[in-house]
Amino acid sequence: MANSKYAYVRNYELSDSLLPGCFLVCRLDGHSFHKFSEEHGFAKPNDKRALELMDRAAMDVMTEYKDIVLAFGESDEFSFLLRRSTDLYNRRQAKILTALTSYFTSCYVFHWSKYFPDTPMRYPPSFDGRIVLYPDERSVRDYFAWRQVDTHINNLYNTVFWALVQQGGKTTAEAHATLSGTASAAKHEMLFQQFNINYNDISARYKRGSVLVQVKKARTMVEVLHCDIIRDEFWKARSYVLAG
Amino acid sequence: MANSKYAYVRNYELSDSLLPGCFLVCRLDGHSFHKFSEEHGFAKPNDKRALELMDRAAMDVMTEYKDIVLAFGESDEFSFLLRRSTDLYNRRQAKILTALTSYFTSCYVFHWSKYFPDTPMRYPPSFDGRIVLYPDERSVRDYFAWRQVDTHINNLYNTVFWALVQQGGKTTAEAHATLSGTASAAKHEMLFQQFNINYNDISARYKRGSVLVQVKKARTMVEVLHCDIIRDEFWKARSYVLAG
Amino acid sequence: MANSKYAYVRNYELSDSLLPGCFLVCRLDGHSFHKFSEEHGFAKPNDKRALELMDRAAMDVMTEYKDIVLAFGESDEFSFLLRRSTDLYNRRQAKILTALTSYFTSCYVFHWSKYFPDTPMRYPPSFDGRIVLYPDERSVRDYFAWRQVDTHINNLYNTVFWALVQQGGKTTAEAHATLSGTASAAKHEMLFQQFNINYNDISARYKRGSVLVQVKKARTMVEVLHCDIIRDEFWKARSYVLAG
Amino acid sequence: MANSKYAYVRNYELSDSLLPGCFLVCRLDGHSFHKFSEEHGFAKPNDKRALELMDRAAMDVMTEYKDIVLAFGESDEFSFLLRRSTDLYNRRQAKILTALTSYFTSCYVFHWSKYFPDTPMRYPPSFDGRIVLYPDERSVRDYFAWRQVDTHINNLYNTVFWALVQQGGKTTAEAHATLSGTASAAKHEMLFQQFNINYNDISARYKRGSVLVQVKKARTMVEVLHCDIIRDEFWKARSYVLAG
Repeated sequence: MANSKYAYVRNYELSDSLLPGCFLVCRLDGHSFHKFSEEHGFAKPNDKRALELMDRAAMDVMTEYKDIVLAFGESDEFSFLLRRSTDLYNRRQAKILTALTSYFTSCYVFHWSKYFPDTPMRYPPSFDGRIVLYPDERSVRDYFAWRQVDTHINNLYNTVFWALVQQGGKTTAEAHATLSGTASAAKHEMLFQQFNINYNDISARYKRGSVLVQVKKARTMVEVLHCDIIRDEFWKARSYVLAG
Repeated sequence: MANSKYAYVRNYELSDSLLPGCFLVCRLDGHSFHKFSEEHGFAKPNDKRALELMDRAAMDVMTEYKDIVLAFGESDEFSFLLRRSTDLYNRRQAKILTALTSYFTSCYVFHWSKYFPDTPMRYPPSFDGRIVLYPDERSVRDYFAWRQVDTHINNLYNTVFWALVQQGGKTTAEAHATLSGTASAAKHEMLFQQFNINYNDISARYKRGSVLVQVKKARTMVEVLHCDIIRDEFWKARSYVLAG
Repeated sequence: MANSKYAYVRNYELSDSLLPGCFLVCRLDGHSFHKFSEEHGFAKPNDKRALELMDRAAMDVMTEYKDIVLAFGESDEFSFLLRRSTDLYNRRQAKILTALTSYFTSCYVFHWSKYFPDTPMRYPPSFDGRIVLYPDERSVRDYFAWRQVDTHINNLYNTVFWALVQQGGKTTAEAHATLSGTASAAKHEMLFQQFNINYNDISARYKRGSVLVQVKKARTMVEVLHCDIIRDEFWKARSYVLAG
Repeated sequence: MANSKYAYVRNYELSDSLLPGCFLVCRLDGHSFHKFSEEHGFAKPNDKRALELMDRAAMDVMTEYKDIVLAFGESDEFSFLLRRSTDLYNRRQAKILTALTSYFTSCYVFHWSKYFPDTPMRYPPSFDGRIVLYPDERSVRDYFAWRQVDTHINNLYNTVFWALVQQGGKTTAEAHATLSGTASAAKHEMLFQQFNINYNDISARYKRGSVLVQVKKARTMVEVLHCDIIRDEFWKARSYVLAG
């Protein structure tokens, strides 16, 4: 940038370095995606194309940014875990946050037509993001458990809700009222009794969300899973994820 | 978001509210646009299509976010001024920063084919951003003067540089060497003597960048100008820009 | 500090520079001074010795730190205004905050015996502090108006309250109950009717708190006033206070 | 605080909560103690009274703030470790930082005459402070190792330096020149050969600084040690220090 008598304004740019030694979690959320999904005719309760497009954008982000060791996605959100010791952009918060958010958004729009060949994008979608620091493995794992439990709960609810509406002929207000206060077991039962749906048969993608991991093969590459990340098994088999 | 025993991880999300009473400037920069512009055959020293696409994305951002009262763009960067008293997203820094960066990126990719009908986008571009606070009108005006002076200096340099290369048959290394240490007047002279170009005749768009202002007409709309924003005249005619 | 293989821990010390171009207000508050004042027999509703000791500590702070252009004290709190353009300790927040808080505390303990010659200090008192940025003159003036209005309100309340207890023979619970919900005028009236006290005759020190200003005489020195700082007059006569 | 139309200025007070799950280290440093120690005739290279006064102030701080599990002092500085899970003042940075700094300062002045019965305090000393977060045990231990190695290095240097000046009749400039670039072994040798001082016989207080630990006995109390905190032994015997 050229020097001039105005260059003093750069003094107002303050440092925003993130604490070393902590894991970084960057979570992106679709902005007004309720409206966006309606305008583009997303299937309910889950639109496979839309979820795969999210996965694709996330995979591109992880391919570009190798310090992202893990990502988890559900619905219109994605969480990226950067390794504890990352020195990406000297750990400058705004730089990391915007680079990831912008690239994810760009990939989402760029790949749209591959996943929605018959649905032109009507207007540009956007995502907002934040970075949260987690100082230890326990809190990182609990963060991802928190997101996956959220996926479980929301998907069960949405699955029954849309069955009631689409197959049961209820209005959305009636469906909400029917489900209000029901426990998990009751929802499973309702699905099975009324709609002959065994919740366990539903795709892991919908029940568990998408887990993306950097895989150290001949060369590093990203693996997409729809597995449990709440229990120890996943983490024990991939101790390198939280290792450095 | 669903509650669970893991929800305590939200306690790690700290407040990032921006100081009230200050102007917010959000500046976006193209990420690795040197490479991106080469891969997509941008004209040198200035590509009108690319600049108009930047303006278009910025205009969409201002149409969506009415608290942006002014924007200034040059090359692959754009600066947005949010009014002092804005309460957008409760002045949460990450939220404002990512919402603007993401939407700008999205619009850039979304509108690409209108501005580059014959050049398919080869890969998704991205932008990084930052927010800087300016507490008074003087420093805000100096911020924008800083960017416009930068435009002046860079454009003059690039205009001569590419004339030397494209018309003068020099290598880029030779062109750099020729220009090294030359004053502004010498560059004007070189342009006129060697290439018969009167720098003053060059489009204001290239010399002054793009100035976008919210115009209060029957309804608020965005105006695109390529005028001087260093001297008082622009600001006096639009005192509402810095007013609230 | 000596270098060693452990010196990397300094990387965890993050920058905490304060935004340029803003006024800094550093407010100190006595820590558990309710107990401290009881243990040391402070007079009620106001102890002149204790207030003068606060003023003395504040004056020493202003003599040491010339960038403090104004201070306001009441009860066990003091607010210091540092000029907008101060570059004290490169505007590092923790450094400024602790230097002022520590020195104020030190002066308070150091001078104690001069103001309380017959009351040995029984245990060490402490103060906590914070720095708040104000970007313009309006908000700075309103900050000090806020503190002085607080002084007015508290002093009127306390004056009637302790008259009821000390002269009126009420318990503190009864005095609180008597005053609950009464307007300012009613309190004035109560003072005059029941205790023959004209509130206007009460010392300005108690009604208005202490205003300390750097005075530019032959050499800079601190002036202590007990004047109105809510209206324009004070500020107009001392335009240099907010000047930069 | 009383409500008024000015109370909006509180909106400028931004949250400064410290990240959960990290250890807090608060380090205090004497402000201009070179001058203070000369004005009060501190013995060189070490003044036992001054060091014991520092220990006393630190012990008082730890007695008041039980969440401080460990402290380390040398010369005119003290570092306090607050346990990882502390919720002191809701982890508000300025509050914790100033409360500790102020109370330490207050205790230092308050107890002065007990440690310097023949030396009246000539002017009030002060300390500045900062808080640094450490996310894991390794970095916390390395922080304290960093300080203790610093003590070792400084004390060896100062011991030889002042022997050269006080017993060897050198000027301070000559003593500096003599020591410039010498290794540790050479300094030990110089001490022994020229001044018959075996460095190993020097008090642990001077070589190792002061280690204060909360001891869980019948009731919690503070223990003062002058032991090695670089190797594992100290930490293994007191695993509760970093435990929660």
